[in-house]
Amino acid sequence: MSLQAVLDQIDSHLEESLGRLLEFLKIRSISTDPRFDRDCKDAASWLANELRGIGFDAACRESDGKPFVTVPAQSGSSTSLFYGHYDVQPVDPIDKWNRDPFDPRVESLPDGAVIRGRGSSDDKGQLMTFVEACRAWAMVHGSVPRNISMLFEGEEESGSPSLVPFLKENSRELKSDVALICDTGLFNHDTPAIVVMLRGLLGEEVTISGSNQDLHSGMYGGIAINPARVLTRILANLHDREGRITLPGFYDGVDELPKQVRDQWASLDFSHGDFLGPVGLGVPAGEVERMPLEMIWSRPTCDVNGIVGGYCGSGFKTVIPSQASAKVSFRLVGNQDPHKIRKAFRFYVRSCLPSDTNASFKEHGTAYASQFSKSGNLFAAVETALASEWPCKPVHAGCGGSIPIAGHFKEILDMESILVGFGKDNDGIHAPNEKYDLRSFHLGTRTWARVIAEIG
Amino acid sequence: MSLQAVLDQIDSHLEESLGRLLEFLKIRSISTDPRFDRDCKDAASWLANELRGIGFDAACRESDGKPFVTVPAQSGSSTSLFYGHYDVQPVDPIDKWNRDPFDPRVESLPDGAVIRGRGSSDDKGQLMTFVEACRAWAMVHGSVPRNISMLFEGEEESGSPSLVPFLKENSRELKSDVALICDTGLFNHDTPAIVVMLRGLLGEEVTISGSNQDLHSGMYGGIAINPARVLTRILANLHDREGRITLPGFYDGVDELPKQVRDQWASLDFSHGDFLGPVGLGVPAGEVERMPLEMIWSRPTCDVNGIVGGYCGSGFKTVIPSQASAKVSFRLVGNQDPHKIRKAFRFYVRSCLPSDTNASFKEHGTAYASQFSKSGNLFAAVETALASEWPCKPVHAGCGGSIPIAGHFKEILDMESILVGFGKDNDGIHAPNEKYDLRSFHLGTRTWARVIAEIG
Repeated sequence: MSLQAVLDQIDSHLEESLGRLLEFLKIRSISTDPRFDRDCKDAASWLANELRGIGFDAACRESDGKPFVTVPAQSGSSTSLFYGHYDVQPVDPIDKWNRDPFDPRVESLPDGAVIRGRGSSDDKGQLMTFVEACRAWAMVHGSVPRNISMLFEGEEESGSPSLVPFLKENSRELKSDVALICDTGLFNHDTPAIVVMLRGLLGEEVTISGSNQDLHSGMYGGIAINPARVLTRILANLHDREGRITLPGFYDGVDELPKQVRDQWASLDFSHGDFLGPVGLGVPAGEVERMPLEMIWSRPTCDVNGIVGGYCGSGFKTVIPSQASAKVSFRLVGNQDPHKIRKAFRFYVRSCLPSDTNASFKEHGTAYASQFSKSGNLFAAVETALASEWPCKPVHAGCGGSIPIAGHFKEILDMESILVGFGKDNDGIHAPNEKYDLRSFHLGTRTWARVIAEIG
Repeated sequence: MSLQAVLDQIDSHLEESLGRLLEFLKIRSISTDPRFDRDCKDAASWLANELRGIGFDAACRESDGKPFVTVPAQSGSSTSLFYGHYDVQPVDPIDKWNRDPFDPRVESLPDGAVIRGRGSSDDKGQLMTFVEACRAWAMVHGSVPRNISMLFEGEEESGSPSLVPFLKENSRELKSDVALICDTGLFNHDTPAIVVMLRGLLGEEVTISGSNQDLHSGMYGGIAINPARVLTRILANLHDREGRITLPGFYDGVDELPKQVRDQWASLDFSHGDFLGPVGLGVPAGEVERMPLEMIWSRPTCDVNGIVGGYCGSGFKTVIPSQASAKVSFRLVGNQDPHKIRKAFRFYVRSCLPSDTNASFKEHGTAYASQFSKSGNLFAAVETALASEWPCKPVHAGCGGSIPIAGHFKEILDMESILVGFGKDNDGIHAPNEKYDLRSFHLGTRTWARVIAEIG
């Protein structure tokens, strides 16, 4: 039976697929808020039930947190583990929504229809593209794809506390040739993307202490060290005038892009104006002479995420603060070693300290950058599927943020991941009025049908 | 009748003087807290009553805030206006007090007796040195000193909102040759001080804005400008490596100390270790090659009093903040022009702004530095009185903080001030367990008796 029959099945039953997604979106599976525990369980049950309806041997698996939904490969050994998450972000600020976030509907907009509702893009809509592709396949073939397994979690939006234990306990069952992670986006409206590199993250909190109490700046000003001033100097000197990070050894393990990737990125129609405009910016502010796409995908960064010291209320208080602190994060790429960089950061800070000051540190996360193999058969299959289904050739993209699941798959299951998704920058994930393009849902489902045809 | 008789009267009636001070200290005249309005009124009445008991024509004068207590000169024209304040600081943290702050008592300590209680040093004990000197004078001479006037306020610890209007409305009455302000301290245990220079103050709040919302540092990190980073660079570059302030023109109007003053200060037994040790510091952190006393008395400063931006809660949030702000103050000396410096600061900040950032400013206070005349007869009289009463010669001191009343007297009444007081650095003013040395009270009273002898 042909792929074409499956694609036709998807097209002709889009309305029913959409109906199921809307039903799924009505479940208030906000994982970070204990008031919605019941809803998260309901979402897991709903999903497992749907999968069983298609013919999969799906199970809801209890954990210390939210249940996992798993599907084993029918053949006994899986070539591809599909991953998605059924939990969603909170809805605050609720007054910014134009409708009930959990009363989803399809809206017709000038640029095409969208599915409006919390979780439509992140990640219920995305995971359902795969489920619906499997359904169409099963309808046409009379049985589900045999060598596909699945893992859905319900804690992705709340730090996935149960994930690592679950992966460890069930590593033999979950281990597959490759993972398919559907939680990313298109490069633009017509151009799909496979994420082939993810930046890592190093989070540090540094506190500079001076006197044993806040001091009167009249009485002590001029003679007492000011930790806020010390901190500003430390932070200011983390970058040089060209926007490069000054920590010794920081760029160890940061390679230049391969020519082929660089050429592809250079040829892409990426408008930094379109990217920055909606947030009120216009000028790429990173390292001089780097392409904007490099800045967000393949170059490491250092950002002050928070800074506080002294009197911050209304009005004025002439104190010399006894301490000041900052939360600083580094996005890492290539083979940068976060542990080495943490050490270099702390050494640098300590080397900047004048007499009478101390620095203390808190660790906030350590994640290596990921680079994904582009060599396997499945990667080629995904690339072909995307190329067939979408107007433009797929891009080998970077991703500036972290997607911890890919790292866990690598570390715990020694499994490569392929990251493909159909979200768009304007989907408003984590924000009010989240939406998912109906076209993303439709072409996404068709894309997976093509991939499944290759796997099968 | 001789000065000696007055001094003897003070010595022999010290117990009664002290009894009156303790009574005064029992009144909870915390001006910043409306719950103590009644107590502030009581303190004013108590003081006016005492003054009337001595023979002065004292009055409680209503204002929009706390009452003023005034005494006109008997002669019709005053050569010296004495100033003090009867209000006190709040007592928080109350659990750090070793006794009820308003149940004062004399404690015998190894280094001498102290009067313990809120307001003992700031400023009830100090102002009572003058009142008790007048009392002794009146007892011996049968009448009060004729050409002395007095002004006591009850809002010094809460910003003196009613003071300027009161001075303006009563300028003819209050205008005197010189004001005597008793709200400062000794240089050290044996060395009295006349404050001849006060630093001015310029307060600014600057906010650097970038994007129109906090951004995800994974998605935007590397391409989006970070206002916190911009702010740290701006603040860090306000000082050079020698601790000098880099604003162009900042040092205009800052003169080197006259040789005589410099020599006097150099000869003083000032231990920066003793000054900084109690607050946990040890090394003067100001301009290189300046004496510690210059750093706190005669050199201008710049301090970050508060800084805030981005996520400052517990844990970590990888945001690029949309804005960051700092409260910055400059202590000014000599003839520095705060308005010019405010302009230079704002110009400097704006000149540091990269694309896509803005700066906005809030003004928080503008006060010129004060330098007091050392030429009048009364100055010589005060200096002689101090030299006669205390073991060491009086110092011509600076004061790092601001004492707004001196500025108001100058601006509104065109009246010079002489600032003399008997507090000590370890009095704990504004802090728990405030005290005033009994010796300060006693020798302070005797000092004023000597000054009054000269005025009279």
